[in-house]
Amino acid sequence: MPLSEFNLIDLFFRGLAPGRADVALGVGDDCALLQVPERRQLAVTIDTLVEGVHFEADADPVSVGHKSLAVNLSDLAAMGAEPAWVTLALTLPRPDEAWLAGFAQGFGALAADHGVALVGGDTTRGPLSITVQAHGFVEPGRALRRSGARPGDLVYVTGTLGDAGLALLVRQGFYTAPEHLSFLHQRLDRPVPRVEAGRMLQGLASAGIDLSDGLSSDLGHVLAASGCGATLHLSELPLSAAVREYVGDTGDWSPSLSAGDDYELCVTVPADRQGEAEALATEFDCGLTWIGIIEKAPGLRCVMPDGTIADATGGYDHFAGSQ
Amino acid sequence: MPLSEFNLIDLFFRGLAPGRADVALGVGDDCALLQVPERRQLAVTIDTLVEGVHFEADADPVSVGHKSLAVNLSDLAAMGAEPAWVTLALTLPRPDEAWLAGFAQGFGALAADHGVALVGGDTTRGPLSITVQAHGFVEPGRALRRSGARPGDLVYVTGTLGDAGLALLVRQGFYTAPEHLSFLHQRLDRPVPRVEAGRMLQGLASAGIDLSDGLSSDLGHVLAASGCGATLHLSELPLSAAVREYVGDTGDWSPSLSAGDDYELCVTVPADRQGEAEALATEFDCGLTWIGIIEKAPGLRCVMPDGTIADATGGYDHFAGSQ
Repeated sequence: MPLSEFNLIDLFFRGLAPGRADVALGVGDDCALLQVPERRQLAVTIDTLVEGVHFEADADPVSVGHKSLAVNLSDLAAMGAEPAWVTLALTLPRPDEAWLAGFAQGFGALAADHGVALVGGDTTRGPLSITVQAHGFVEPGRALRRSGARPGDLVYVTGTLGDAGLALLVRQGFYTAPEHLSFLHQRLDRPVPRVEAGRMLQGLASAGIDLSDGLSSDLGHVLAASGCGATLHLSELPLSAAVREYVGDTGDWSPSLSAGDDYELCVTVPADRQGEAEALATEFDCGLTWIGIIEKAPGLRCVMPDGTIADATGGYDHFAGSQ
Repeated sequence: MPLSEFNLIDLFFRGLAPGRADVALGVGDDCALLQVPERRQLAVTIDTLVEGVHFEADADPVSVGHKSLAVNLSDLAAMGAEPAWVTLALTLPRPDEAWLAGFAQGFGALAADHGVALVGGDTTRGPLSITVQAHGFVEPGRALRRSGARPGDLVYVTGTLGDAGLALLVRQGFYTAPEHLSFLHQRLDRPVPRVEAGRMLQGLASAGIDLSDGLSSDLGHVLAASGCGATLHLSELPLSAAVREYVGDTGDWSPSLSAGDDYELCVTVPADRQGEAEALATEFDCGLTWIGIIEKAPGLRCVMPDGTIADATGGYDHFAGSQ
């Protein structure tokens, strides 16, 4: 039996994500019809994952499904938004039922965790890629923008930094970490969007971003948007046991500084609210760690563990060097 | 100089589409922040165009830019929604400045025509594909859904049917129509989303859909959602001079019945409001033509010009027959 694009969506995605009262019309018409709550702004973000660029051809489809939603929920988290709805545009070389079932399982489980409804989509034939748009709500004036950092603000991050970057080095054969394999793969393939942390940081953080391209690159966006600079203290960076061992073995801080894919949040907090930030840190499962300070002088500096100061550059840019 | 993904968006897209007062935060942060008007529902639709599937590798980038937005605005038109915002996820094998400039020109001109703001996007490296999500507004309860057709309702379409399908036959070398080349290419490459017609049909039409996959297939979706059937009168189908000649030459009605890409609207109107529909038709530049009737008996039938009745099937399905 030919498996039509309409069947594909019906078979694997309908009913996977939860229903919501604010969805007046979901999958199956020309548009979805949605009701944004009164006195809320709509936050939207769109991201594409491409086979061979963002994941390997033999990647576990459950992980690909999880990650394609997670990276978008992470953008909502970075604004402090409450996730509500997603749309999914799936381009597939052929209708592979096993792959689709796995993808839908990973996508649907994370959607259910966050009460997010799949409200629309498109399925086309072509080289494998996945575009997801996530929609959430924020109170006007309360979103965590990149432009709000001010000199003197403290820089915090959730979770640990560099695990996804180290996982990639291990997967590519540049390093071995047999004791930490499962942890590292999980961190790269199944990032946890810090949605609850982002929402709790609203009203406290002056700026926020999620770490998709790497700390130096992403914090650099905050600095550029805010018109200031920063100094980070490397010895304060929150590291997993795996990354701590790697840094000890190699002296290489790049997974934590400039590798992407950690999807932790980086926020700035006015210095006079340090006590509130540290109280909040105890409520986060993922932790919230002070790593540096916003300064008037442009640029990003790092205090190395030996006390010397280095310039921090880098970050992943899909097209850098290609022309 | 490396052309970064951020530069790409800045260079070619920032400022192209108009600003809007309801965009609290546009391109350049983790999310866009948008204000849906009070007492309006949000209508959203997402569609992907893939090189080699939806357009050829040597297609004019201005047309690709136009069409990638037009197909989404057409989905808004099919609901009767007022277009407001779009997001753009662009996957490119390399940053080709000439291609991007053309794409942005086509995309931006159509966005400006409809007062639509580009509020966010993503640029990734990979095989060329374009995913656009369009966002519009509808009054609650007034959207043109697929499920509202009832036996006795009259079936109308905007514009003319089969031009895009005939253009494809010509381009593939199966037919020649030297006098109509420019018209046919325009109809295939630069479809006009029937946004104003869709909005004016709200409150009058009982159901609506846009003709992306072909009349029989798309009207079939309305019939399935509404639980009824229909009979079309082929001699009533609105045809351009080009398609009229083609049908005269070949006796083949398939471009008008089952080829896609016309992006006209197909709506149903209760029979007691026929007068209003025909009054409205005189206001549409694109016309509004009666072509058939909704019936209780399931299925889609066609009254041929010789008075015989045929079963109408078909329509383009991206995966049909591939398994």
